[in-house]
Amino acid sequence: MEEVSLVGSKLGMASLTSDHSSIVSMNLFVALLCACIVIGHLLEESRWMNESITALLIGLCIGIIIMLNTQGKTSHLLVFSEDLFFIYLLPPIIFNAGFQVKKKQFFRNFMTIMLYGALGTLVSFVIISSGIKFIFSKMNLGPLEIGDYLAIGAIFSATDSVCTLQVLSQDETPLLYSLVFGEGVVNDATSVVLFNAIQNFDLSHLSSGTALHLIGNFLYLFILSTLLGILVGLLSAFVIKKLYFGRHSTDREVALMMLMAYLSYVLADFFYLSAILTVFFCGIVMSHYTWHNITEGSRVTTKHTFATLSFVAEIFIFLYVGMDALDIDKWGVVLRESPTKSVELSSILLALVLIGRAAFVFPLSFLSNLTKKSPHEKVTFRQQVIIWWAGLMRGAVSMALAYNQFTRSETKVRKNAFIITSTITVVLFSTVVFGLMTKPLVRLLLPSPKQLQHFSSMTSSEPSSPKSFVVPLLGNGQSPGGNGTVARPSSLRMLLTTPSRTVHYYWRKFDDSFMRPVFGGRGFTPYVPGSPTERDNP
Amino acid sequence: MEEVSLVGSKLGMASLTSDHSSIVSMNLFVALLCACIVIGHLLEESRWMNESITALLIGLCIGIIIMLNTQGKTSHLLVFSEDLFFIYLLPPIIFNAGFQVKKKQFFRNFMTIMLYGALGTLVSFVIISSGIKFIFSKMNLGPLEIGDYLAIGAIFSATDSVCTLQVLSQDETPLLYSLVFGEGVVNDATSVVLFNAIQNFDLSHLSSGTALHLIGNFLYLFILSTLLGILVGLLSAFVIKKLYFGRHSTDREVALMMLMAYLSYVLADFFYLSAILTVFFCGIVMSHYTWHNITEGSRVTTKHTFATLSFVAEIFIFLYVGMDALDIDKWGVVLRESPTKSVELSSILLALVLIGRAAFVFPLSFLSNLTKKSPHEKVTFRQQVIIWWAGLMRGAVSMALAYNQFTRSETKVRKNAFIITSTITVVLFSTVVFGLMTKPLVRLLLPSPKQLQHFSSMTSSEPSSPKSFVVPLLGNGQSPGGNGTVARPSSLRMLLTTPSRTVHYYWRKFDDSFMRPVFGGRGFTPYVPGSPTERDNP
Repeated sequence: MEEVSLVGSKLGMASLTSDHSSIVSMNLFVALLCACIVIGHLLEESRWMNESITALLIGLCIGIIIMLNTQGKTSHLLVFSEDLFFIYLLPPIIFNAGFQVKKKQFFRNFMTIMLYGALGTLVSFVIISSGIKFIFSKMNLGPLEIGDYLAIGAIFSATDSVCTLQVLSQDETPLLYSLVFGEGVVNDATSVVLFNAIQNFDLSHLSSGTALHLIGNFLYLFILSTLLGILVGLLSAFVIKKLYFGRHSTDREVALMMLMAYLSYVLADFFYLSAILTVFFCGIVMSHYTWHNITEGSRVTTKHTFATLSFVAEIFIFLYVGMDALDIDKWGVVLRESPTKSVELSSILLALVLIGRAAFVFPLSFLSNLTKKSPHEKVTFRQQVIIWWAGLMRGAVSMALAYNQFTRSETKVRKNAFIITSTITVVLFSTVVFGLMTKPLVRLLLPSPKQLQHFSSMTSSEPSSPKSFVVPLLGNGQSPGGNGTVARPSSLRMLLTTPSRTVHYYWRKFDDSFMRPVFGGRGFTPYVPGSPTERDNP
Repeated sequence: MEEVSLVGSKLGMASLTSDHSSIVSMNLFVALLCACIVIGHLLEESRWMNESITALLIGLCIGIIIMLNTQGKTSHLLVFSEDLFFIYLLPPIIFNAGFQVKKKQFFRNFMTIMLYGALGTLVSFVIISSGIKFIFSKMNLGPLEIGDYLAIGAIFSATDSVCTLQVLSQDETPLLYSLVFGEGVVNDATSVVLFNAIQNFDLSHLSSGTALHLIGNFLYLFILSTLLGILVGLLSAFVIKKLYFGRHSTDREVALMMLMAYLSYVLADFFYLSAILTVFFCGIVMSHYTWHNITEGSRVTTKHTFATLSFVAEIFIFLYVGMDALDIDKWGVVLRESPTKSVELSSILLALVLIGRAAFVFPLSFLSNLTKKSPHEKVTFRQQVIIWWAGLMRGAVSMALAYNQFTRSETKVRKNAFIITSTITVVLFSTVVFGLMTKPLVRLLLPSPKQLQHFSSMTSSEPSSPKSFVVPLLGNGQSPGGNGTVARPSSLRMLLTTPSRTVHYYWRKFDDSFMRPVFGGRGFTPYVPGSPTERDNP
């Protein structure tokens, strides 16, 4: 934020303005954001591109232009700042993902998501750490401490949830989307535990006690973060329900929802929890309860505002990473010494990322399929390939972690320079190349979107409309006819045949008889078609 | 921004987190914002209070609590930062004011607004500067430079547009609202010129050449700032109209409107213009053209989002000023030496503010009334009293200017400490006391809102609906029946009887035949009831 906040003073006087060149940067940056949106809109129909790759490429181009104009002195308008990323850009993206996620899909695959996110990240971490330890010593780059190897493992195990949102479509491939994105969110909680472990435990002798401690730590973090998110979400629902005495105050409702969502994020930070998990669950709860307690104007506004903020933040991040990638300070040491070695290291890291992910996606999918009885519910091999591929992108989280670990003390140290530049290369390569190839890969491996949608709704046996699901169980005399859905009495028996259905049934009962009367939700205010999880206006 | 951006890292680890106490501050601050909104909602029906005074008082209380808890070491969670104010909080407020302003009312009273804003600010500036020069030497506070006296004049001539928005209601008193708020916006441009003059001209001998230079400077600044705002607004309308090929992309539209509004602000800063004027006119143009080119979802979203952002920014500012007011560093010198002198100085400044405003409101209203033929159009004495009173508040702009001028070199110098603390006192006193008394004063001097609305719509001879105004002139066969308004043919003759009507008529003609086909606007997309200037959902 330092650079941005330098821009000064509405009075526009040279003497008052902190630094005119930072105003220039800010102008350029806002103009570039606008350009990315317009170009992204024009390229929407394209087979390969998506908005984030466009932004990344535009950022790279502008970086080169700036570098040429300043005779190679600088390439960026803004320096990559962890704070800017974690405080302003990440929260709206993750919150919006929770707010718009298809809840049923997410909770139905909860166990699989946990397997991928927790165990999978651990497998990937172990493979990358041990791989890099083996190779680093052979590359003559000087020895690293054990903590550094583990940090590299953690850095390259961090999936880029933001990129996942862009390459997979919730409407076209709901099952894959919820698996890969859900994994990304759980992955974050695992990263926190891993980093904590790396920095606090005595790593020279790992025992079974350490492992138990790690597992306990993870469970503590996961459960508390989730609970905090749910709590803040419920609080917002309760406050807004109580305040709504027939008096309309759309601005207050929208403001309260935004502020309380953000509050959940900073509260998690305050309690040393995983803020991403917290804000994600806060989003889920807000879309389930709070969203139904507000006026229709507020509903439309919150749905689009959260989506827009998330959208702008995503473009911002990719533009930013693209521009920062060419920073000459970081490349200086590497280019002077041995550019080939940097390429070598990057390739090895990319290979390790590929192997590390394959090593858990296929075995864990096999395990997960064993628990499923119906063949419709199993994850097919083609789907497994897509899950493997779509989670390969490494993004801003990896960058932020790498900066944090390897630029703290000595910025120009040889080995640090190599690791930082390799991280940049891996991030750029995986985002651009893997990202570009995801859309075609999905189309190659899976049937066309129309068929696919049918297919995935089969695999999850999801009723065609959530209402037809609620009404027979509720039996509260609410007429569904107005929305064109017909209650299917046979679905009730079908629902109770599998255990996950049973859990869901009891949850519905609890939700209807206790939660909704207190916190509001659909059924207690007139039903309005187009809840944030149903109507999509991209 | 420094304090806020210190809050670090989503990873929530002690070692990564920049400073845990700043996370505490941030948590408290977000929670307080939520509390202010809820309390403001509960107090909405109150006769005296409004949201900003509530926030100010809550800020003061929390300041006292923090001071007691830290044994008087500190009273604030965040330090007042000019950048935070001018870069993040002010733009949404002013943009939203332009976006939601009743355009007809504003342009009809344009000359009166210019008189108040330009000439009036100058009169007030001269009176306060010369008054303080006369008194300061008698108070034994040490001599000031001529530039300092003039700066004090400028600081206390800066009306608080934000507070005006809160104490006057656009719906209840449209004429007064547009006069006082419009004056506040023009006042900003005048402040820029005055500050430029104070810092760049040789002030020891003012000649007629200097005056001419000042006037030229003001016109240059005013015209260019306005043009820039209009240009960016039209560009946004054009881009969105061209992009809208039947494909709906609500998020992109909303994002583009937000970013381009912000772009106009930073562009004005870049060209050393009055960013407030620019973003205000950008808001007007966007609500006239761009808003009609977007999907209905985007319309609802932008209207409420801009209002919400502005609403939160307002509360933020007042909470912030309230907390910062007790800063012990600034009060230390004053309290040790002579508290009575500070009270004395504050009272004198308040008196000068009262006199300085009276000295231009009444004479200029008299002048303005001379040009009006119909008695309905004249500003009555009672209305003049309200205009005088409602513009007395001094707010964050005054604070920011005072900090800028008097804390640059020596923070603890005696005279600077006195001026800073007096500024805080004047801001607090004028906002709380004058602010609290505005609502009752309006009710005392003017008839009840119902009558008032009728009365004011008489004074401006405004047609009951803008549509009835457009349709007879347009004659484009568009049926207004669907919206329940009936075209009144007699209004056409009536419109042409006065010159301001004539200007308006030709503008309409130009707008319909040239501007709207290029930039869009009402009539080129299906009419949707509830434009941002018509439907209010507070």
